[in-house]
Amino acid sequence: MTASGTSSSSTITVICGGVGAARFLRSLIRVVDPALVTAIINVADDMVLHGLSISPDIDTVTYTLADAIDPERGWGLREETWRAMEAIRRYGDGDWFSLGDQDLATHLHRSGRLADGATLTEVTREIANSWDIGVTLLPVSNDSISTHVTRADSGEEISFQEYFVGERHGVPISSVRFDGIENASITEEADRAIRTADTVIVAPSNPIVSIGPVLAVPGVQNALAASSAPCVAISPIIGGQALKGPAANMLAELGHSPTAVGVAELWSDLIDVLLVDDDDASLSLDVAATGVTPYVTDTIMATPERGARLAASTLSAAQLRIGSSS
Amino acid sequence: MTASGTSSSSTITVICGGVGAARFLRSLIRVVDPALVTAIINVADDMVLHGLSISPDIDTVTYTLADAIDPERGWGLREETWRAMEAIRRYGDGDWFSLGDQDLATHLHRSGRLADGATLTEVTREIANSWDIGVTLLPVSNDSISTHVTRADSGEEISFQEYFVGERHGVPISSVRFDGIENASITEEADRAIRTADTVIVAPSNPIVSIGPVLAVPGVQNALAASSAPCVAISPIIGGQALKGPAANMLAELGHSPTAVGVAELWSDLIDVLLVDDDDASLSLDVAATGVTPYVTDTIMATPERGARLAASTLSAAQLRIGSSS
Repeated sequence: MTASGTSSSSTITVICGGVGAARFLRSLIRVVDPALVTAIINVADDMVLHGLSISPDIDTVTYTLADAIDPERGWGLREETWRAMEAIRRYGDGDWFSLGDQDLATHLHRSGRLADGATLTEVTREIANSWDIGVTLLPVSNDSISTHVTRADSGEEISFQEYFVGERHGVPISSVRFDGIENASITEEADRAIRTADTVIVAPSNPIVSIGPVLAVPGVQNALAASSAPCVAISPIIGGQALKGPAANMLAELGHSPTAVGVAELWSDLIDVLLVDDDDASLSLDVAATGVTPYVTDTIMATPERGARLAASTLSAAQLRIGSSS
Repeated sequence: MTASGTSSSSTITVICGGVGAARFLRSLIRVVDPALVTAIINVADDMVLHGLSISPDIDTVTYTLADAIDPERGWGLREETWRAMEAIRRYGDGDWFSLGDQDLATHLHRSGRLADGATLTEVTREIANSWDIGVTLLPVSNDSISTHVTRADSGEEISFQEYFVGERHGVPISSVRFDGIENASITEEADRAIRTADTVIVAPSNPIVSIGPVLAVPGVQNALAASSAPCVAISPIIGGQALKGPAANMLAELGHSPTAVGVAELWSDLIDVLLVDDDDASLSLDVAATGVTPYVTDTIMATPERGARLAASTLSAAQLRIGSSS
């Protein structure tokens, strides 16, 4: 890598949650060769439902990069049908977590392969290959990790999916716990992808429940510390709000500032540069005060063109660190 | 029970496999109150596929009694769609065992409930109740039993579903094994239903792989031995052939006569009376020579009326035993 720009063979590793990360990756491969990009994806939203192993963030990234995601819902497959879910109502099962008929095939395949002894890393690669995705998709861990949140109202601990889907993230929380994370470990593949990347990017995903559990997997911090690559994040918070989802509320409820400054504080040990939206330009000095270099730009990927510009800006921002530290 | 006929509160327990048993039960409840009928169903065809717990015989009985079975295929639900199976081809999964979208709901519900700690007996009752089935449906065991057959050509042992569905039961076999059966046991509910029934009927199902594993579950023979009720079977073999499936070939391949006589020989210790089809009237003396009373009648349930007559004949045949032994 040279200070004058990313070389044509610079590798990029992106720390990912679901929707925001998927959109960023889709933008990124408009400006770089997908073969140079590796996504390290959160697995703490994963769950077993009706006997099936479900990996929401991996699937959202996969379907988005395959251009198969439903654009209205933002999750699941386009032109989906819901015959199985309609039929399951007969049995009185809560259908709070809807699985489309075509989407079920992904879960059936994954569950069957895992039962056969394949790792989540292997199955994720197989599924990505089936969709002809050029980006390398890696779960951060093959181990089972499960996010739980404590409701501030009742003190009850509920699973992330009950909070996120069942309660539509409408209840305040007082804490977050990643069940099983002490016994989990980073995969060899994810470890290598972080250590050897020329640029590390933290995608604009929920800092608490998407990026948080990735960073908390034993081994991830060591891999990041061993990397000399610039690490750039895109703030998922714009004007005190997340574009989608409960990130701002969660930050505030857990005692962080629900702003780009709060994000910079959270990751000041990790990232060199934070992309801050134009709307938050006034926060630049406060971001800089955390020790993170602010890079103010348009961070809303409302069109393919704006997404591509954000991806290019992110790579430029990485150069900024290299420039400043050289 | 009186010698003059079944009383209006005589209970009937039917030992069942899949299709043949389902059709017999449907016929039986045309002539008796479904609340008096208990079906003890084979579970050795059960399997886990793509992470889902599948109980083919239980589902065939359930869907048939619910009048929801697909009449063309003879299995699965009517007006079914196949979106999930179409989608799973992308992943290169063999779709030799097709699961319809609505049928998937049954497997999803069952798998979820079993994962929650429910027994197969409980889940089977819940599903039957959801379909408003008056007959009590009981798996013979809550334990995992899995039929395997050895191919006569290659000597390879394959699962029953690979043989039955994958190979369309087109290869000769040299042996049958019920994996796990030594450690299985009859359920309390099935035990009670056999011991207390006023009449026990063996449905016209495959003697080797449907009725065979039910009778082989530890506890079933004891329960049958403790019963003083007449035990009547309907021969599933007519003119040397099964109406459907590989029963005749299997009997021959395993050294039994593929006739009603072979069936009588197989069950001579168990049954009092064997219903033999009109076409096999000439076999009556040979059946009688096994110690089983032959009862010649029309055993083909081609119409609801003929089915109802067979059911009534079966109950009359039970009276025959009582008459002859009193």
